[in-house]
Amino acid sequence: MTHMTTDEKYMAKAIELAEKARGCTSPNPMVGAIIVKDGRIIGEGYHQKAGEPHAEVYALHQAGMDARGATLYVTLEPCSHYGKTPPCAKRVIAAGISRVVIGMIDPNPLVAGKGLAMLQEAGIEVEIGVLERQCVEMNEAFITYIKTGKPFVILKSAMSIDGKIATASGESKWITNEEARLDGHRIRKEVDAMLVGVGTIIADDPLLSCRLPQETVENQPHLYILDSQGRTPLDATIWTVPNRNITIFVGEECGLEQMGAFSDKGAEVIVTPSNERGLDISFILEELGTRQCMSLLIEGGSQVVASFVETKSFDKLVTYIGNRIIGGIGATPAVGGLGFSSLDEAVQLDIDEVMAVGDNMKIISYRRGREGVYVYGDH
Amino acid sequence: MTHMTTDEKYMAKAIELAEKARGCTSPNPMVGAIIVKDGRIIGEGYHQKAGEPHAEVYALHQAGMDARGATLYVTLEPCSHYGKTPPCAKRVIAAGISRVVIGMIDPNPLVAGKGLAMLQEAGIEVEIGVLERQCVEMNEAFITYIKTGKPFVILKSAMSIDGKIATASGESKWITNEEARLDGHRIRKEVDAMLVGVGTIIADDPLLSCRLPQETVENQPHLYILDSQGRTPLDATIWTVPNRNITIFVGEECGLEQMGAFSDKGAEVIVTPSNERGLDISFILEELGTRQCMSLLIEGGSQVVASFVETKSFDKLVTYIGNRIIGGIGATPAVGGLGFSSLDEAVQLDIDEVMAVGDNMKIISYRRGREGVYVYGDH
Repeated sequence: MTHMTTDEKYMAKAIELAEKARGCTSPNPMVGAIIVKDGRIIGEGYHQKAGEPHAEVYALHQAGMDARGATLYVTLEPCSHYGKTPPCAKRVIAAGISRVVIGMIDPNPLVAGKGLAMLQEAGIEVEIGVLERQCVEMNEAFITYIKTGKPFVILKSAMSIDGKIATASGESKWITNEEARLDGHRIRKEVDAMLVGVGTIIADDPLLSCRLPQETVENQPHLYILDSQGRTPLDATIWTVPNRNITIFVGEECGLEQMGAFSDKGAEVIVTPSNERGLDISFILEELGTRQCMSLLIEGGSQVVASFVETKSFDKLVTYIGNRIIGGIGATPAVGGLGFSSLDEAVQLDIDEVMAVGDNMKIISYRRGREGVYVYGDH
Repeated sequence: MTHMTTDEKYMAKAIELAEKARGCTSPNPMVGAIIVKDGRIIGEGYHQKAGEPHAEVYALHQAGMDARGATLYVTLEPCSHYGKTPPCAKRVIAAGISRVVIGMIDPNPLVAGKGLAMLQEAGIEVEIGVLERQCVEMNEAFITYIKTGKPFVILKSAMSIDGKIATASGESKWITNEEARLDGHRIRKEVDAMLVGVGTIIADDPLLSCRLPQETVENQPHLYILDSQGRTPLDATIWTVPNRNITIFVGEECGLEQMGAFSDKGAEVIVTPSNERGLDISFILEELGTRQCMSLLIEGGSQVVASFVETKSFDKLVTYIGNRIIGGIGATPAVGGLGFSSLDEAVQLDIDEVMAVGDNMKIISYRRGREGVYVYGDH
């Protein structure tokens, strides 16, 4: 990033604007737009929330009549479809913009390239793919969601360097440091929903809310619990978080009484088919997709993480590594279950980034072969 | 390292020279020396092997009469004791060197500072601690050995990102990539000895030799095997490596017949006391210290690594992380045994360095609280 072109500099600024709404736009993407004329920014905007205007609308409004002959920088291809409002591409044309620089093409295969074509047909000079990788990374959850109809699934593990998430006696507070835990809360803020196994609730009685210092988090992620037998304690602390939706996936073996008790506590109960591994993960992800859940954070425990790993039902893995060795055959591994018996079958990862988090580490990786990825150069 | 002083530049060159003998100097340290006069290097040398001359001797010899009034750069404090040859400090004085720049003080508490004092008493200007950290890191094994009388112990693990070293069915070839494995062989080349549990020999039948491409490794590290019952197979491939010493630590329960068979194969057999954990690690490390084993690489398996972890009998941990998730309660963890039941008791690490090894990762860390570390600023 040392030698950015002028186009890249403005696109970086548009990305910065888009990022302001991180965690707020679901099920829409984050989008930022900037209008530049004679080396001066005359309009800017970003998409703030589903239902609110698109980024281009704000930027064009701010630029007003000056937009004529100006350049628009926008992180995502302007939309081409008529909804409640006319498509952004039409607005851009109407405003007299003469050049449009686009970060990435719309990942929705049904509309990809259509906004672009509209602009080009109107004689506007269009450039595509400026800081494309950053634009794509910013909306990785949206892209997967729009292409697969299912949420972008993030597995989170906080483990010792030897892969343990609790000692043999069950102690897990704290394997990672405060900075790593805070970072975990930042991820909670960005996702639509969290999912946890009932075992973790019984063992640790966590709040499972997003808590950040000097900040009141109003939109708590929806909490989903895998609880085939309906064992979630009615006095667990999860019930004490105000304004937070809880849904419990129970199995057919769950008694009606428990289901009624969960409903009385304000939770939604969904009876879920099972297979030999337990509750059917694919059913759950399709259900979440239908509910426009764009991103899902799996918070454990060991067994639930194993279900998502063994069914290859995740996209991203965030691993926090504490600076301890726990050891022990009986200590809880980050990924339990049966595991893969052959290395050829095992999930492969692409390690993307490694960073220090104080005296701990954070590793970000992606599942090799995951579905719903952006296709570069397809424009 | 962007703005090195002149002294640092010459010291860096002396370190480079010292490094040429990496893996060859045990039980002595690596040492490099450079003599500079009027901005020109007039002599250089490094310690090549125990029994051969010290670095200063080569450099002084090369400089000859020109050494008078010159500056000597040496990575380690010149020695002060009379052995087979007069001490280096005396030679430096006799040669008429007027300034000596030293990387680090001799870590041996019995002689630390004495060479320095000799030089100063002779009116030589002495500077200490130039690139001290690099000088110390280069000789980390020697320093621990000289201060504790026991080898510097390196634990090596090649694991999946979730801390497994084999699948539930025992498959372990290969969890890490070729580059990582090659890096492991480079460590083997640098150490005096390797130690492995008999379980690994039975399960994997490895050669446990150091193999590097385009290089014939003549000095194979000594192989130590922990084998309380004397189960090492007599037809294992370990026996096929030529010119390699093998020592088997057996327990008192080992039959005389097995011991005899091992001796017949050319191995040394040491009957070792046991405690509730198995063979006594502390006895073994003292024995190795007595034999001037300066550095020991623990190659596994899970149980042997656990013995060294639980007794806090290691200095450095080298973790290779492959890009796979293996999962499974029944898969072999990097560190088996009983483990620590409380996090307060667990071994703490200082993570020192993380690097990419192709699409895998390597993490270097040190045990917090380890003994025999260099004391900075003690001069």
